[in-house]
Amino acid sequence: MNNMKYVGKETPRIDALPKATGTIKYMSDLVFPEMLYARILRSKYPHAKILKIDSSKAKALPGVVAVVTHEDVPGVNGFGIVVPDMPVLCKDKVRYIGDTVAAVAAESEEIAERALSLIDVEYEPLPLVEDPEKALLENSPKVHENGNIHLHTEIKRGDPSEALKKADLLVEHTFYTGRQEHAFLETEGGVAFIGADGNLNVYAGSQYPQRDQLQLARCLSINPRKIRVVSYPVGGAFGGKDELTIQPIIGLLALKTKRPVKITLSREESIISYWKRHPYILKYKVGFKKDGTLVVVDATLIEDKGAYSSLGGPVLNLAVEHACGPYRVDNVHIDGYAVFTNNGVAGACRGFGAPQTSFAIETIFDIAAEKLGIDPIALRKKNALRNGDLTPIGNKLTTSIGTIKVLESIEKSALWKNRNKLKLADPKKQWLKRGVGIALTYQGTGLGVGLPDYGGAILSMDEDGGFTVGVGTVDYGQGIGTSYAQFVAETMHCPIEKIKVILGDSLLSADSGPTSASRGVYTGGKASVIAASKMKEELLSKASRVMSLPCESLEFGNECLLEKNKPNHYISFKSLADKFIEEENKLPMTEGYFLVPTAEIKIEKAEGLPHHIFAFSAHLAYVEVNTLTGEVRVIEGAEAVDGGVVVNRQGYEAQVEGGFVMGMGYGLMEDLIIKNGIVKNPNFSTYIIPSIKDAPYNIETIPVVNPEDTGPFCAKGIAETVMVATAPAITNAIHDAVGVRLFKIPATPEAVYMAMKRKAID
Amino acid sequence: MNNMKYVGKETPRIDALPKATGTIKYMSDLVFPEMLYARILRSKYPHAKILKIDSSKAKALPGVVAVVTHEDVPGVNGFGIVVPDMPVLCKDKVRYIGDTVAAVAAESEEIAERALSLIDVEYEPLPLVEDPEKALLENSPKVHENGNIHLHTEIKRGDPSEALKKADLLVEHTFYTGRQEHAFLETEGGVAFIGADGNLNVYAGSQYPQRDQLQLARCLSINPRKIRVVSYPVGGAFGGKDELTIQPIIGLLALKTKRPVKITLSREESIISYWKRHPYILKYKVGFKKDGTLVVVDATLIEDKGAYSSLGGPVLNLAVEHACGPYRVDNVHIDGYAVFTNNGVAGACRGFGAPQTSFAIETIFDIAAEKLGIDPIALRKKNALRNGDLTPIGNKLTTSIGTIKVLESIEKSALWKNRNKLKLADPKKQWLKRGVGIALTYQGTGLGVGLPDYGGAILSMDEDGGFTVGVGTVDYGQGIGTSYAQFVAETMHCPIEKIKVILGDSLLSADSGPTSASRGVYTGGKASVIAASKMKEELLSKASRVMSLPCESLEFGNECLLEKNKPNHYISFKSLADKFIEEENKLPMTEGYFLVPTAEIKIEKAEGLPHHIFAFSAHLAYVEVNTLTGEVRVIEGAEAVDGGVVVNRQGYEAQVEGGFVMGMGYGLMEDLIIKNGIVKNPNFSTYIIPSIKDAPYNIETIPVVNPEDTGPFCAKGIAETVMVATAPAITNAIHDAVGVRLFKIPATPEAVYMAMKRKAID
Repeated sequence: MNNMKYVGKETPRIDALPKATGTIKYMSDLVFPEMLYARILRSKYPHAKILKIDSSKAKALPGVVAVVTHEDVPGVNGFGIVVPDMPVLCKDKVRYIGDTVAAVAAESEEIAERALSLIDVEYEPLPLVEDPEKALLENSPKVHENGNIHLHTEIKRGDPSEALKKADLLVEHTFYTGRQEHAFLETEGGVAFIGADGNLNVYAGSQYPQRDQLQLARCLSINPRKIRVVSYPVGGAFGGKDELTIQPIIGLLALKTKRPVKITLSREESIISYWKRHPYILKYKVGFKKDGTLVVVDATLIEDKGAYSSLGGPVLNLAVEHACGPYRVDNVHIDGYAVFTNNGVAGACRGFGAPQTSFAIETIFDIAAEKLGIDPIALRKKNALRNGDLTPIGNKLTTSIGTIKVLESIEKSALWKNRNKLKLADPKKQWLKRGVGIALTYQGTGLGVGLPDYGGAILSMDEDGGFTVGVGTVDYGQGIGTSYAQFVAETMHCPIEKIKVILGDSLLSADSGPTSASRGVYTGGKASVIAASKMKEELLSKASRVMSLPCESLEFGNECLLEKNKPNHYISFKSLADKFIEEENKLPMTEGYFLVPTAEIKIEKAEGLPHHIFAFSAHLAYVEVNTLTGEVRVIEGAEAVDGGVVVNRQGYEAQVEGGFVMGMGYGLMEDLIIKNGIVKNPNFSTYIIPSIKDAPYNIETIPVVNPEDTGPFCAKGIAETVMVATAPAITNAIHDAVGVRLFKIPATPEAVYMAMKRKAID
Repeated sequence: MNNMKYVGKETPRIDALPKATGTIKYMSDLVFPEMLYARILRSKYPHAKILKIDSSKAKALPGVVAVVTHEDVPGVNGFGIVVPDMPVLCKDKVRYIGDTVAAVAAESEEIAERALSLIDVEYEPLPLVEDPEKALLENSPKVHENGNIHLHTEIKRGDPSEALKKADLLVEHTFYTGRQEHAFLETEGGVAFIGADGNLNVYAGSQYPQRDQLQLARCLSINPRKIRVVSYPVGGAFGGKDELTIQPIIGLLALKTKRPVKITLSREESIISYWKRHPYILKYKVGFKKDGTLVVVDATLIEDKGAYSSLGGPVLNLAVEHACGPYRVDNVHIDGYAVFTNNGVAGACRGFGAPQTSFAIETIFDIAAEKLGIDPIALRKKNALRNGDLTPIGNKLTTSIGTIKVLESIEKSALWKNRNKLKLADPKKQWLKRGVGIALTYQGTGLGVGLPDYGGAILSMDEDGGFTVGVGTVDYGQGIGTSYAQFVAETMHCPIEKIKVILGDSLLSADSGPTSASRGVYTGGKASVIAASKMKEELLSKASRVMSLPCESLEFGNECLLEKNKPNHYISFKSLADKFIEEENKLPMTEGYFLVPTAEIKIEKAEGLPHHIFAFSAHLAYVEVNTLTGEVRVIEGAEAVDGGVVVNRQGYEAQVEGGFVMGMGYGLMEDLIIKNGIVKNPNFSTYIIPSIKDAPYNIETIPVVNPEDTGPFCAKGIAETVMVATAPAITNAIHDAVGVRLFKIPATPEAVYMAMKRKAID
């Protein structure tokens, strides 16, 4: 890609300046005339019947403009991407402590807050469903009438029970993973108002404006065309804003009051009320031959779904698909359950089921390598999926497969080569033990077979000869806006400064599916390239006529079209724009649509499986364990990542570094504790995420070029894979340092300390 | 007990001679005039709807006298000791492959057999419930309408989750135990006929004639007084004849045909159709302090109930009670599920839930001893329950507690003292490795709190001056008939030859509860002693009048009453009998009833818990493992057993030896394999039990005297405890020999071989 000007180069983010200078307006910065403030009354109990709601006292409070309950919801009183089972406002039952019972719009936040305390709700508490394993049983109390099993996905290949018997080495463990909070900087919030055209406008940071629009239309009983959703800018999401949050409430209040209504959640309300990463229980039995060949994986995955569906089903399916890691194995039995409980709600979160299974399978690979006396990279190479292989769930791989390449790259890293030297403890601090750990992972790009998976882009020429591209996905920090600008600039031969990008607007940008599943660059990017190619045809045809030259004798130059071999005979884009206005009274506009290619098979009863395109990464962690306290410091990290190609080195590094640190939080610190349905650590003084002081002093990014022909400029996406295997790399490093295995993450100091204490006894 | 003549002495079995000479008549030896032969049509599918049954062709076959289906059952079409959910003849659904659909009575077995093939049954197969863990889930197909959870028992003490976190050593494993066949010598069979008095007589070996009588009355809609059940002699039972089997069918056919009807099951039909030991899945987490103190047991027990209830609930409760072994522990969480499946049927079997949990907890103690570097006996002593302690489920021990005594006794055995020397392999056969293993256990005697638990005996004087004692329990090989004779002879000062014993007859023997739960000697024995004491009063009073002497000056001598200090002035029992007939025209008869003392607390929702009286045993196994094949030979065994006192040394040794070998089968060989609802090894050529060639050349019996004041002559019972811990003693010995742990029994050669192979890799 050396002949390129933008793609593959270090390109400053197009949103860097407005973000750094604070001129970009987030939803909490928006102020409208006559604006009201909303507050939400949430359930007092994690599981209870609602016997009575009396809001008369609240309504009578001066300054209160509206109080709404379930009776005020004009449409379907439920939302949810897959199953609309989460009430906008609860009617007869609450299912978790953040469930919404009533909402107030008032002249100030203080009045709204006071009004909440005047709403009388009578509850009858119900038995709690807390333990997802017990929730599965037929005698458990039920969170939903139809039972606690939201989804059961079972996949079987070969003869796993026979293979388990015959394996030379059997590794059998139960793993537990924590409930991770997305910890985006901007909490859920937004403003809804009725525009001059009478349409409902909902401005709230989210990941898919067109889907929000449809969900809101259903709840509010409005034609979707009469709703505009603006979901960009958004101050971080990581999957936590894929599902609706506060939008239906402010939409409802705006319709009711005919005034703009704004809400911004406090951090505590945000943590208590909305989506988290699903905690998993993972029961694995994995068999190897003496020579290291992986022969069987038998796993039961239990997902604590919390109270409502949202994306818990697809998350489970992805976990099932990724349960064996990126390895060849012929005997497979994966049995997954997504189970309703009263433990808050969980939904999409970066990695989408893969970080949970990666922790299990990569720990098992580390154990196997140790027991079989095989180098951990060699063991992974031996079993790694390659092009042409069948995946564990039986899907033939025909796209760019980077397992071996990322392993070979990581093997050459300084961290791996010097690991024996790096292990040596500081002689003056013998209680600090060091170790290096590795983990390999992959991540399906996009939504998988059977789900509509497409990219869309609208490209219009501007009066100045530049272009505006509108894509429905959003840039919540990962940098896809910049990537789209790069793709369009590169394709159009136009300086990137003259490319404008409109994201996340149901009116002005094309439906490009959700900003999730590592698919933003791949889908919206490809659509942008297609729209740009069409634009080039329009320009070429216009130039041909204006210059009275056949198309064949023209070519694109810098911001112009020129006669081949006659660089001085050209027409600039600006002049072409003038011509368009002069002759047609409008500027050209093209659309690009792109259907994501899918796998050839479809796994029955497992919507979205299998995937067809994958990103790959190998993670290294270099840790220091304080044997006196159990504290683990990650000194250094490295990741070799196959995302097809590097679109923007800056963004690539930022993704890897951010992913590594998020994975570090997942592996060492983060777990939202819910006991008796109550969140015990609902703020950042108790729910600890890695700070800059915790981050390793260096995270080496090793890009592995492995072009994916179907992608824009051969790019895939790396948003999730870069985070997925950091936790097992760290726990494997802990084992390398002090010889103990962690089967539960986060590996808190207490857990590591107790494991060392027990190890001393073993 | 040195001053005794019979109790505590080696006494030949009273049934030795008739059994050895073949003069005793078992049910299959009975032939009546005009007798018909019955055969049963069993289900073709393990789970199916019955759409139609057409028996017209069978009825038309010459020689067929009756064909019965569900339509012919006059009473409740169901039986079962706890819940009558097993149909006499299935109506609309079959739930396992042995379920009864129709039955034929014909002039010969051949005709009956042919008739079965002429019965047309139309089925609609239903999805199978095979895996008891999956059967628990709410989305599982259901074996019974009310769901697959037959019983859920949960017991919690202290703070187990906190204790698990703080334990210095955590041992966590999942254990699996096999489905053991009782393998009694005499298969299920019997004869039913209508007697001259018009009453229904059912002669079929079983464990509790009075309960059979009531169950039959309910099914056949007859006053129980019009039914006589004779359940003795019985050629072995081990719990497998506690529940009804073929009795309702032959009873029904006898009523229908007014002729005697006989059935004797083939071995295959016996194995396929009736009760087995429940397979268990046992998930244990056990914590110890560094010094060996047991601090917490957290266990989930899953019982594969098979298709019908029978005694699966009580078995589960006993498993829950015994889940921690005979050890003190303050933090306990035991969660037990008895789960319906289509895997045959399971019910009572010697040990009744304890062998399953003993395998788990005694393996864990062995692991802990190894890891903590503590001698395995010392570790058990440290934690052993003692008098005054609370049991794991919170019951205060106030009866005779033998843990320390049996451990001290086994510690002095040659096998234990010389174990290091015994471990040495034959230098010429280095592939044969040897080891010694220990396990400790206990077993509740009787039915536990809240269930009617009593002994009863009728004692009558005979014309010859001897006595006849009638007890409803049966002697199915364990020797209780001889014990009762000993107790009566000893109490009455009468030679044992003159004591007759009537067992298992609903008409002639007193209701003494079931012959199960190690309770035969204790309950019926105590009742016999009470009846004998009353008889002595009758004799004393009669002698006093006959001899014109005050009672105070008389005492009992050998078969007589005599004047104290005047040995020549006496009246013999024979003369007393004559006097009774002369004066009263009848011989004296007394009854003894005895209510089993129970624990002071009652565990809510856990019927039968806790127990009050316990037997204890420590088991040793000395094994040789063939490292080339995985075969395990048990060279020698030893058991130190606290059964209160030894009633009969011969019977005691036979119980210990028999129990050890049955436990050996359980630990090494026996598992009835059911796949897709079909029994894969339904005969003794494929279901292998230990033969005399497999039995150890010596099993040392070490009786530990620990008198239980409430028992007859201070005896308890040893029937189950002697079998319970043999399997873990053997698997612990295998570990001692070759260093591998078995978490699943039976430890077949394949399993041991694979474990060694894997160990070599570890």
